Amino acid sequence: MPTLLDSLLPAIEEEIRRVLALNNGEQYSLLHHMMAYHLGWEGEGAGPKASGKRVRPILVLLTCAAAGGDWHTALPAAAAVELLHNFSLIHDDIEDNSPLRRGRPTVWKLWGIPQAINAGDSMFTLAQVAILQLPLSAERALQAARIFQQACLRLTQGQFLDISYEEQRDLPQEAYWPMVGGKTAALLAACTELGALCAGAPPEIQSAYREFGEKLGLAFQVLDDELGIWGDEAQTGKSAASDLLEGKKSLPVLYGLQQEGAFARRWMAGVLTPEEVPALAAQLETEGARDYAQKTAARLTDEALAALERAQPQGESGEALRSLARHLLRRQA
Amino acid sequence: MPTLLDSLLPAIEEEIRRVLALNNGEQYSLLHHMMAYHLGWEGEGAGPKASGKRVRPILVLLTCAAAGGDWHTALPAAAAVELLHNFSLIHDDIEDNSPLRRGRPTVWKLWGIPQAINAGDSMFTLAQVAILQLPLSAERALQAARIFQQACLRLTQGQFLDISYEEQRDLPQEAYWPMVGGKTAALLAACTELGALCAGAPPEIQSAYREFGEKLGLAFQVLDDELGIWGDEAQTGKSAASDLLEGKKSLPVLYGLQQEGAFARRWMAGVLTPEEVPALAAQLETEGARDYAQKTAARLTDEALAALERAQPQGESGEALRSLARHLLRRQA
Repeated sequence: MPTLLDSLLPAIEEEIRRVLALNNGEQYSLLHHMMAYHLGWEGEGAGPKASGKRVRPILVLLTCAAAGGDWHTALPAAAAVELLHNFSLIHDDIEDNSPLRRGRPTVWKLWGIPQAINAGDSMFTLAQVAILQLPLSAERALQAARIFQQACLRLTQGQFLDISYEEQRDLPQEAYWPMVGGKTAALLAACTELGALCAGAPPEIQSAYREFGEKLGLAFQVLDDELGIWGDEAQTGKSAASDLLEGKKSLPVLYGLQQEGAFARRWMAGVLTPEEVPALAAQLETEGARDYAQKTAARLTDEALAALERAQPQGESGEALRSLARHLLRRQA
Repeated sequence: MPTLLDSLLPAIEEEIRRVLALNNGEQYSLLHHMMAYHLGWEGEGAGPKASGKRVRPILVLLTCAAAGGDWHTALPAAAAVELLHNFSLIHDDIEDNSPLRRGRPTVWKLWGIPQAINAGDSMFTLAQVAILQLPLSAERALQAARIFQQACLRLTQGQFLDISYEEQRDLPQEAYWPMVGGKTAALLAACTELGALCAGAPPEIQSAYREFGEKLGLAFQVLDDELGIWGDEAQTGKSAASDLLEGKKSLPVLYGLQQEGAFARRWMAGVLTPEEVPALAAQLETEGARDYAQKTAARLTDEALAALERAQPQGESGEALRSLARHLLRRQA
């Protein structure tokens, strides 16, 4: 039996293609290609694995339907959030000097930094164009654009913090939240709020959906942090404890620093060797960081799921939304 | 006697400061500082010379007043166009590897490429936030945002072409117009159209103002190209013929290539030495490129001024707009 997602995914791809085609003109074909490559549509290795999972646009459309709307209404917002997310990845890859993304060379690796900056800027602009194309009343369309801009602002702030933190080995625990709030939760909160707005949901329902998105983003990030140190390689797809090796300022690390114990002393002494990592991960667990991260993730997950229930998601799409949330949050029903 | 500009300039600075302050929070103070530095407000060498001339926001406000509106209405649009312009300069400086801008080290030179990309992205976002703050009806506010997005799209396309052309020594003459249209004219057209929209001018007046801005941008760029090869160093502030040395794809050069004469043969043979430049500039003039550029600039200038008269600019601000146009286009009254 075809599921709702079977209709949503092709509609999302088609809508993003429509928006990208607004950059038309033969002289811009390389600009178009760089963006289409990054989105997983063109070039070597193109295909679903290179596209990412389109979680954000799916959230927009499912929320719209679960809030009683026709998900087709929200398609421009779905394209906008996915383009915004991917713009930030193109620039992030330059900033982090990352050669690979989803198993393929990054845009800057293939076309150089100057044109990768331009590909990101164009994709950001197309996201802005898309969010203004919602078939809503002018008042509601403006509200949607403002919700989107707030997410953009938090996203660029989060990106700024992330790069700032690279040069600081020591950081207080409260430094964590504005960074993950900006890099992950802001956009997910905008996804669910925009979906509810497109459905014409009343303010309290919109705000419950917004809180669901925000907490979903935070919980997801804390879970990801926990798995990045103690996760199963088969499950996470990256080598265990790789986050420690890379010096990532994840929640368990910031918790460990605050304990000022053996973990903190070794961490502050400088970059780790791969051989040291397993013992240091065990030390961090002994100091309570894993337990702390798991409890924090559990609390945020509960809050996310409670906000979702307050939003009273309806019908098949409501079920799909619950199931997506549980899947992302690794809670089986 | 204080002129209109004496009130506009401080109001523009204050409005841009208000928008920049939306990036608030102690943890973002470096992000704020990078943007304030680039705008000429902070850091070594801060002051009017480091700020640039604010031509774009002045155009927005003067057009609004000349079209019968209260220029205060258009302040968020004035801030938006200036922030958009400066975002593009921050990224342009990275892409061109430029160490200096307005006599001071560029943002990427001081804080590195990753944070300079972020400072540009944040400034772009703040421009988007500002354009949504116009005190207009929702319908008109949406129209303003759409006009702005079209300018953003052409701007990023123009920037893409500019970088693409760097690797091509040969280019047909028609390659010139979408590049300067995107890099210069698109934003000036948006400035005058937004000013007229904020004044509530009827569509034919809006469209005349838009054409004025577009042609003003093109004429200005062609004049700049002519001066970049044959200009007086005292007048242009850069050494004569420096555009030839840098290999800039200016209109006279593309005209000269099309003649397939002595200029084209030397140009295609590779980078010039400073010693060769004066003779090659003279050769290019002999082949008719200077005359062609001057005639093109004169035609575009006439078209710009004719469009401005069709728009029927009113009162003191109308006079100020005519006078600004003549000043930029080097036509004395």
